[in-house]
Amino acid sequence: MTQALAGFRPARRTPAEPVPLIQALHRVPAGPVAAPHALPGFARSTVDGYAVRAVDTYGVSDGLPGYLQLTGAVLMGAQPSVTVGPGTAVSMPTGGVLPPGADAVVMVEYTQQVMPGTVEVVRPVAPGEGVVRADEDAAPGAELVPAGRPLRAQDLAMLAAAGVTTVTAYARPRVTVFSTGDEVVPPETATLRPGQVRDATAVALAAMAAEAGGEPVLSGIIPDDPRALEAALRAALAASDLVVISAGSSVGARDETAGVVGRLGTIWCHGIAVKPGKPTLLAECDGVPVIGLPGNPRSALVVFRLLGVPLVRLVGGCTVPPAEPSVRARLARDLPSAAGRLDVVQVRVAGGVATPVFGLSALLSVITVADGYVIIPEEATGLDAGTEVDVTIYR
Amino acid sequence: MTQALAGFRPARRTPAEPVPLIQALHRVPAGPVAAPHALPGFARSTVDGYAVRAVDTYGVSDGLPGYLQLTGAVLMGAQPSVTVGPGTAVSMPTGGVLPPGADAVVMVEYTQQVMPGTVEVVRPVAPGEGVVRADEDAAPGAELVPAGRPLRAQDLAMLAAAGVTTVTAYARPRVTVFSTGDEVVPPETATLRPGQVRDATAVALAAMAAEAGGEPVLSGIIPDDPRALEAALRAALAASDLVVISAGSSVGARDETAGVVGRLGTIWCHGIAVKPGKPTLLAECDGVPVIGLPGNPRSALVVFRLLGVPLVRLVGGCTVPPAEPSVRARLARDLPSAAGRLDVVQVRVAGGVATPVFGLSALLSVITVADGYVIIPEEATGLDAGTEVDVTIYR
Repeated sequence: MTQALAGFRPARRTPAEPVPLIQALHRVPAGPVAAPHALPGFARSTVDGYAVRAVDTYGVSDGLPGYLQLTGAVLMGAQPSVTVGPGTAVSMPTGGVLPPGADAVVMVEYTQQVMPGTVEVVRPVAPGEGVVRADEDAAPGAELVPAGRPLRAQDLAMLAAAGVTTVTAYARPRVTVFSTGDEVVPPETATLRPGQVRDATAVALAAMAAEAGGEPVLSGIIPDDPRALEAALRAALAASDLVVISAGSSVGARDETAGVVGRLGTIWCHGIAVKPGKPTLLAECDGVPVIGLPGNPRSALVVFRLLGVPLVRLVGGCTVPPAEPSVRARLARDLPSAAGRLDVVQVRVAGGVATPVFGLSALLSVITVADGYVIIPEEATGLDAGTEVDVTIYR
Repeated sequence: MTQALAGFRPARRTPAEPVPLIQALHRVPAGPVAAPHALPGFARSTVDGYAVRAVDTYGVSDGLPGYLQLTGAVLMGAQPSVTVGPGTAVSMPTGGVLPPGADAVVMVEYTQQVMPGTVEVVRPVAPGEGVVRADEDAAPGAELVPAGRPLRAQDLAMLAAAGVTTVTAYARPRVTVFSTGDEVVPPETATLRPGQVRDATAVALAAMAAEAGGEPVLSGIIPDDPRALEAALRAALAASDLVVISAGSSVGARDETAGVVGRLGTIWCHGIAVKPGKPTLLAECDGVPVIGLPGNPRSALVVFRLLGVPLVRLVGGCTVPPAEPSVRARLARDLPSAAGRLDVVQVRVAGGVATPVFGLSALLSVITVADGYVIIPEEATGLDAGTEVDVTIYR
């Protein structure tokens, strides 16, 4: 499993495309974006008050105020029409342009207009105080956002401030999702015939692929027939950056899937040391990574989260995956595990205690009642009750 | 702040609407969804093997195998055409319907077809072994998903399995975002005149609103003119579930905003004990919650994350907000804080150490270089270097 995660690194990357800033949340920049000019671009007041020469305020105090001549006012969004000379002050709004000659802004709280045209100052300011330098938020050419890290809300703000309204980002990977199995019918099937089950997996895989930044394409249900699967897979490869097959649940159906995938490309591994998830297949066909998932919906969801989501991100150029929520909790009971096998255990979490949810891997309810999961690494032979574990929380 | 978070609970909720399952990830069910029938709906094999009467396997072992007569095979997705009587076995694929008369399935690994028509069994099975009961995943009427919790991928799988392809969910709250200020120009402005700044906040607020499940509406930039703001606010109230105003940065502009909001509704609070974020306004106008944010983009983003995101969720019916990623880290240096004021400190995190990023609240770069933030609660007067803190990680 760790092997599978670390070792299978297909080379495919989606091409770069222009994305309007307003749609760019969580999109992955294909290169770093540099500031086209200094930000904010002009020296700006950070407070409401008076622009002054700092030297004119030295030594003033409540007991010994200084007096400056008020020579004008700066208006928001406008070039100052006055300069600040010795012994003078100009009224400033927060965010206004520092007028020529001034090197600091005294907060209005430390001043008083004792008579029209005269400002009393009771606190000294140092040069630069109350002011943002013209390049203090970004120097020209400074990196505003790095390549490979999905854009966060504040990154969009910074790009907007710099006038960057289009970002060159990796295209969303097209993730084609198939289901296979003679017993599988579409979710909208109102009445099942005996032995039929609705396709539970595809819609959940599509959701996870979308969450990982992909563009899911639901390609329906393929019967247990190698020729049908081969035709579907060939068509999908041409139009996909990643293909996901929820394989049939029986050994025979899985072997058929492997046979078809093997004919169209190279199988990287078939069978991983993960519970649940053993019969997973990883392959590359025509430069497109292919994942064959176990037939049990729950196993398929567990494996896709562990292996598929990182693959979607990789193909989509994401080198800094976003953090997943997690909590530390104490295990409510012993968790046995075979060494050499990674176990994914569903848990409920309450009051700092993680209670494992057990049940057959065929049961979806095990994962829908869970709040998150605990991973027992390959080298461990189980965890004792009371052990502190990291629970990854579903969202 | 805690006060503001806990106390301001506007009653507005969006109406319920039908949402196709395929678009329902993270949507909030308006009521619990019950299983319309038992799931999987029939007793199913969980292994490849042979359906048997468990009693016929009692006492068998490698040294003393049992022999059963093979009377047929169950096909995937089909009603069994055979029954299992005493001394007989029927071949089963994983997921097949348990035939009448059988109460267990022996794994193929513990059997051998010694001659055509005869199955050798070397391990006993108990009744129910190798089988999922017809209602084991969900009994008819069982709650598949609760109301108020955003749907996760596995919830969609469970609903699909049950044939529920449309979910009744709260409509996404329409979140109207205004910016105000004579100095503020649209992000696409190529060349700024002296004193102008591009609107950095609106696109980031829209992104956060969307992430919280809202439907953002960017309503542009309003000049510092109470009549213009009043007209814009009136129009927005009629079409919004929540209105967000990035107020002007100067005291005068903020007072004007408060004046307009006060004329159209009830101001719940103006000024909160949060740094950065003091000049925040919370109000309700015509049954629509209104948030007035500080003029500094960074302060606006911090406050919207703390107060706005929970409001979007509240109005959208979300009673179980998704977990945010966080890490425990040790503070690299002392963090001073005034008691009675909640401080939001931006930090970088590496190797278990959280290093505060300091800088004027006018600087966006402070939050774009940060990995997350630490909250110093109101009652604390600062945190010492080395203190273990929870860092909420941006994503």
